[in-house]
Amino acid sequence: MPKSSNLPNKSAKAAAKAAIAKPAKDQPVLRSIKGGKNTGAKASSGKYDPAKTHPATPDDTPVIALKLEGSKLSPAMAAYFKKCQEKLGFVPNVLLAYAFDTAKLETFAAMYNDLMLGDSGLSKLEREMIAVAVSSQNRCYYCLASHGAAVRQYSGNPLLGEHLVMNYRVARLNKRQRAMLDFAVKLTASPWNVEEGDRERLRRVGFTDREIWDISAVAGFFNMSNRVASATDMRPNTVYHAQAR
Amino acid sequence: MPKSSNLPNKSAKAAAKAAIAKPAKDQPVLRSIKGGKNTGAKASSGKYDPAKTHPATPDDTPVIALKLEGSKLSPAMAAYFKKCQEKLGFVPNVLLAYAFDTAKLETFAAMYNDLMLGDSGLSKLEREMIAVAVSSQNRCYYCLASHGAAVRQYSGNPLLGEHLVMNYRVARLNKRQRAMLDFAVKLTASPWNVEEGDRERLRRVGFTDREIWDISAVAGFFNMSNRVASATDMRPNTVYHAQAR
Amino acid sequence: MPKSSNLPNKSAKAAAKAAIAKPAKDQPVLRSIKGGKNTGAKASSGKYDPAKTHPATPDDTPVIALKLEGSKLSPAMAAYFKKCQEKLGFVPNVLLAYAFDTAKLETFAAMYNDLMLGDSGLSKLEREMIAVAVSSQNRCYYCLASHGAAVRQYSGNPLLGEHLVMNYRVARLNKRQRAMLDFAVKLTASPWNVEEGDRERLRRVGFTDREIWDISAVAGFFNMSNRVASATDMRPNTVYHAQAR
Amino acid sequence: MPKSSNLPNKSAKAAAKAAIAKPAKDQPVLRSIKGGKNTGAKASSGKYDPAKTHPATPDDTPVIALKLEGSKLSPAMAAYFKKCQEKLGFVPNVLLAYAFDTAKLETFAAMYNDLMLGDSGLSKLEREMIAVAVSSQNRCYYCLASHGAAVRQYSGNPLLGEHLVMNYRVARLNKRQRAMLDFAVKLTASPWNVEEGDRERLRRVGFTDREIWDISAVAGFFNMSNRVASATDMRPNTVYHAQAR
Amino acid sequence: MPKSSNLPNKSAKAAAKAAIAKPAKDQPVLRSIKGGKNTGAKASSGKYDPAKTHPATPDDTPVIALKLEGSKLSPAMAAYFKKCQEKLGFVPNVLLAYAFDTAKLETFAAMYNDLMLGDSGLSKLEREMIAVAVSSQNRCYYCLASHGAAVRQYSGNPLLGEHLVMNYRVARLNKRQRAMLDFAVKLTASPWNVEEGDRERLRRVGFTDREIWDISAVAGFFNMSNRVASATDMRPNTVYHAQAR
Amino acid sequence: MPKSSNLPNKSAKAAAKAAIAKPAKDQPVLRSIKGGKNTGAKASSGKYDPAKTHPATPDDTPVIALKLEGSKLSPAMAAYFKKCQEKLGFVPNVLLAYAFDTAKLETFAAMYNDLMLGDSGLSKLEREMIAVAVSSQNRCYYCLASHGAAVRQYSGNPLLGEHLVMNYRVARLNKRQRAMLDFAVKLTASPWNVEEGDRERLRRVGFTDREIWDISAVAGFFNMSNRVASATDMRPNTVYHAQAR
Repeated sequence: MPKSSNLPNKSAKAAAKAAIAKPAKDQPVLRSIKGGKNTGAKASSGKYDPAKTHPATPDDTPVIALKLEGSKLSPAMAAYFKKCQEKLGFVPNVLLAYAFDTAKLETFAAMYNDLMLGDSGLSKLEREMIAVAVSSQNRCYYCLASHGAAVRQYSGNPLLGEHLVMNYRVARLNKRQRAMLDFAVKLTASPWNVEEGDRERLRRVGFTDREIWDISAVAGFFNMSNRVASATDMRPNTVYHAQAR
Repeated sequence: MPKSSNLPNKSAKAAAKAAIAKPAKDQPVLRSIKGGKNTGAKASSGKYDPAKTHPATPDDTPVIALKLEGSKLSPAMAAYFKKCQEKLGFVPNVLLAYAFDTAKLETFAAMYNDLMLGDSGLSKLEREMIAVAVSSQNRCYYCLASHGAAVRQYSGNPLLGEHLVMNYRVARLNKRQRAMLDFAVKLTASPWNVEEGDRERLRRVGFTDREIWDISAVAGFFNMSNRVASATDMRPNTVYHAQAR
Repeated sequence: MPKSSNLPNKSAKAAAKAAIAKPAKDQPVLRSIKGGKNTGAKASSGKYDPAKTHPATPDDTPVIALKLEGSKLSPAMAAYFKKCQEKLGFVPNVLLAYAFDTAKLETFAAMYNDLMLGDSGLSKLEREMIAVAVSSQNRCYYCLASHGAAVRQYSGNPLLGEHLVMNYRVARLNKRQRAMLDFAVKLTASPWNVEEGDRERLRRVGFTDREIWDISAVAGFFNMSNRVASATDMRPNTVYHAQAR
Repeated sequence: MPKSSNLPNKSAKAAAKAAIAKPAKDQPVLRSIKGGKNTGAKASSGKYDPAKTHPATPDDTPVIALKLEGSKLSPAMAAYFKKCQEKLGFVPNVLLAYAFDTAKLETFAAMYNDLMLGDSGLSKLEREMIAVAVSSQNRCYYCLASHGAAVRQYSGNPLLGEHLVMNYRVARLNKRQRAMLDFAVKLTASPWNVEEGDRERLRRVGFTDREIWDISAVAGFFNMSNRVASATDMRPNTVYHAQAR
Repeated sequence: MPKSSNLPNKSAKAAAKAAIAKPAKDQPVLRSIKGGKNTGAKASSGKYDPAKTHPATPDDTPVIALKLEGSKLSPAMAAYFKKCQEKLGFVPNVLLAYAFDTAKLETFAAMYNDLMLGDSGLSKLEREMIAVAVSSQNRCYYCLASHGAAVRQYSGNPLLGEHLVMNYRVARLNKRQRAMLDFAVKLTASPWNVEEGDRERLRRVGFTDREIWDISAVAGFFNMSNRVASATDMRPNTVYHAQAR
Repeated sequence: MPKSSNLPNKSAKAAAKAAIAKPAKDQPVLRSIKGGKNTGAKASSGKYDPAKTHPATPDDTPVIALKLEGSKLSPAMAAYFKKCQEKLGFVPNVLLAYAFDTAKLETFAAMYNDLMLGDSGLSKLEREMIAVAVSSQNRCYYCLASHGAAVRQYSGNPLLGEHLVMNYRVARLNKRQRAMLDFAVKLTASPWNVEEGDRERLRRVGFTDREIWDISAVAGFFNMSNRVASATDMRPNTVYHAQAR
């Protein structure tokens, strides 16, 4: 296990701090928050105090197990980080991980925001449900912690988050959502076996072809993210764990 | 199997045709070509004539098995398609598949171009080798056909392309490249098992942490693309098959 | 999904209620609690109110998806349930599930208590860590929820519980504990491959042969429990989810 | 491979010998024998003589590959061993293995006897069939040898024992028994995939919910025993191999 | 399950009977027998009487689950069958299965006899050990029953046969034989992973390259036979089960 | 990776050269060629020049990674090699690999020729399709390269060869051929799961029991060949790669 400090983490944090002077309004944050409450603040000052329970090894330092030389954030990305800080109370570690290279951060954030927050026949909750079911199949710690929290928040149902983290088959889903997750998990586990019959099963429960694209694209995206996270030992912000329990 | 015509295909082709009037010079194409020869043209007018061998069902029509309503290409994307047409002799089908939604096309192309053509300690050939080894593990037809052709082209070694398509372990690689593909394939098959020891193995054969990121990001990207392609039954341009044999 | 009410649940609850009149002191409870605080009570009256977030389908009603005719609890078991109620604030659902047959409940409780609470060179936390790592391999909802909570409580480290639920390889363990979980998970995933070399690896990090027996027996036990729980769709008490976050 | 002698084996044998002086009548033996014939005696004095064919390395010495300090058997367990000796002609090695700790031996024997010999809608043969099918999936030598013999004895059909040891799918079973083993083997191989549909398949061939519990509990039990046996390299009594061929 | 009678079985038996008039001396039999005792006869008239224990469904009738029109045996094959009858007491069912086509029977028997009985640095027992270990990995009933008997006979060690049928890792083998079976089983389970390192491991324990060929060829052969047997539900002669116990 | 020269290769080539003086007419070649054109000659003098693209490491020298002392070819095999040379322009490397032992070469060639070129209700193309689908499941480089070329040649459809190499599920097959390949691939991946239902599925699309035998036998044969090839690192003749593209 790497014990050295993580440069991008530091440089990204410095860049994010510098960026606070220049606010930006039109940037979507990684996850939209209903009601705008600062969940992160609540969590960090609330019942669970990570500094107390394990002061020596906070789980998310360093963010990843690679030493990467950080670059300066572009103004757009600096504004984005500032918005995260304001709305969430923290910058998600995946963004800090990508921040060593502004171009990579931008392409990642653009794809993420389009897929997870853009227009779709799938609700934001449904997209997060796919994220968690896929990440459970791949046993990805980063994504299970962060998107498990998202499912708990969006659904207002803490149990649903746990079901999807542990075994999506135990969740009490309607037929549409069950078919959606069955497709996403099969696509994750054995993509070579996905065929017209699988698409037909989605159509039969009411999904349009455009929605099938979105299910596929979200499931595909997390198959990418899961692997970047596992390859780099990416650590979720500790704050996620206590959110919306 | 879907027998209906594929709208995005048509609309994207119309949009691409419309875009030909407004050229753009600074757009990278999906694959840079050494020497600028129009491989596609050679292939399409050469020995292999798909229209003759199977006129009724050209393999790549429709491009995908979903009917998606096409949108108009943005000027940037129209220019990009035009550049593909000029340099490659065709627009890669994956771009036509994404063209139903210009925003999605742009985020996909931006990430692709950064990863596969941007600065990296990995050569373009090495990145294509990862693409093929990952796609072989996932048995993804689209990516094996298109990136297998890229490996043959970049390497000038047709056998290397076949080795990676069929079983990368038979390729006669140096230690660095073998370690690179071992990591990428393990990350594909069981990402949950990737740990510090795996990163150490890469460092021991000379990879920097930044290069480990790039290996991970490229492997991750094709784990996404493979799944979008399999989920939608994406078909590669027929021209790829005969390239650089 | 079964929609009918679950008899053992009802009869067991009735039996448990009846048993409250006859207290018993010498019965070990399913999990010993440090300091004796009634965690269950706190959870049920605290921040998370399951009745509010999903009143129609409380997760743990019915306890299992089988309709079993309940029998009367033996005095020993009635006392045991009463003690659970006093110390934990609830009777763990796995006990309610077995309560349809007092003999089965007794053999289960006796084995459980011997393994998890009896004398051993493994700490109670270590035994719970094995329980969670095994249950994660088997994706058992009941055991992940209940024993994940136990790991959080015993360790005072909420993150450790999440690590073991999601992918034990991300937990920052010492060599001894890592070897212990590697053995337990291999024994779970492919018992036929466990050989002298595996036992030797445990001895090399300091485990005695007696401790190797205990690791094996605990891992074996949860391979049983996981399957009984999955076979019957056993539901954990909702209260576990918010414990010790 | 361990070459040292195995203490529990010795101490257990000493304890068992000591116990012979105090008989006990009400103790069930590990396997009830139709007609009360001493099969073991026949086998040990019959055609197959292990001492002759491989005198240097009798398969079952030591019983397990762990050196465990033996404890004195409780009177109940001593009586149990004596009864085994009288009825079977030998004490099953699994009991000798557990005998290092009387409490563990008692909980194991109690659960075993309740599950395999207690009241159930499943015949004893059916429970042994589950034991063998599960043990075949887990490739457990101890359980295949001992319970394979039990299937041969109970069924009077030596071939059935071999079918279940080798591949239960070749056995010519009625629909009820085939469904029972399909469930048990699926529960063994991928418990996370067992759902209401699987239980429904059992109900459709006539199993009651109580019998589904029993199938699950027996399958679960052997998933435990298989792992304890594999983890400790437990060796079956040589006598099993020639029984009821 | 097929209930119709099996033609090749009948026609082959008729052909074999017809062939008895014309003996042939120089034909090797499927398995050479030490000492020439007629094991089959002993088994069929001995302790185990299949006609008594399951008269309605003798396991090996029909030999396979396909109805194939039988052809006349060539004189060489008729002589071969006659020799089997004389030396073994029966014609192995695999030969009856292939007998519907004399050309196929001849190529099968020629390859079998060359591999299993021809010159090799591997003993006949070692080749049978490979056969059983491979067949266990593939869970092939026909080959486990017939070649398990062969291992028991050749080795004079009934336990060895059971070890290899159930899990070859429990057999107490020398390093050479263990390496041989490890190679054969890996080649069976994941041939794509076999590389120079695996061959080196065989050379290190003393195998010549020619012997590595033989290990590979025998393992390959049973990967073929296992599949023909499973595909056709081939049934071993009942007599095998009781041989050399 | 072995760097030593490969003896059988040399001796076999010498033997083949010597054999050219004594022609033989009635020997079938490994693959019959429609129209009798010498494809091999075209390939070796055509567009693809392996000596130019990778002069230092021609892929197929040595043919296998084992050093085997070559024997003299029998007159029949010498004639066979000569015929290959005349009709194909080369001797397939698999024959050179077996040539170290004429008896083994003869049994291999006899079985191959009976199965792949003999009478059958399956067309030669269909048998080659099975060969490729099986070899893809086993990721066998030798067989994918050589039989992939055969599918391209027989079908006149280069894409079909690529489909079967990469993932047979993307090929646009009729129901009969799809069922045939589904059976062959299941038989390859998990032979123990093949049962009467699988045979019934083949009968339902029109296969006779004799054709089911042939599908099984061809699939079985390539499960053997794939393993011999992988075990020995067998290399296909370079000429295959450019054939019939």
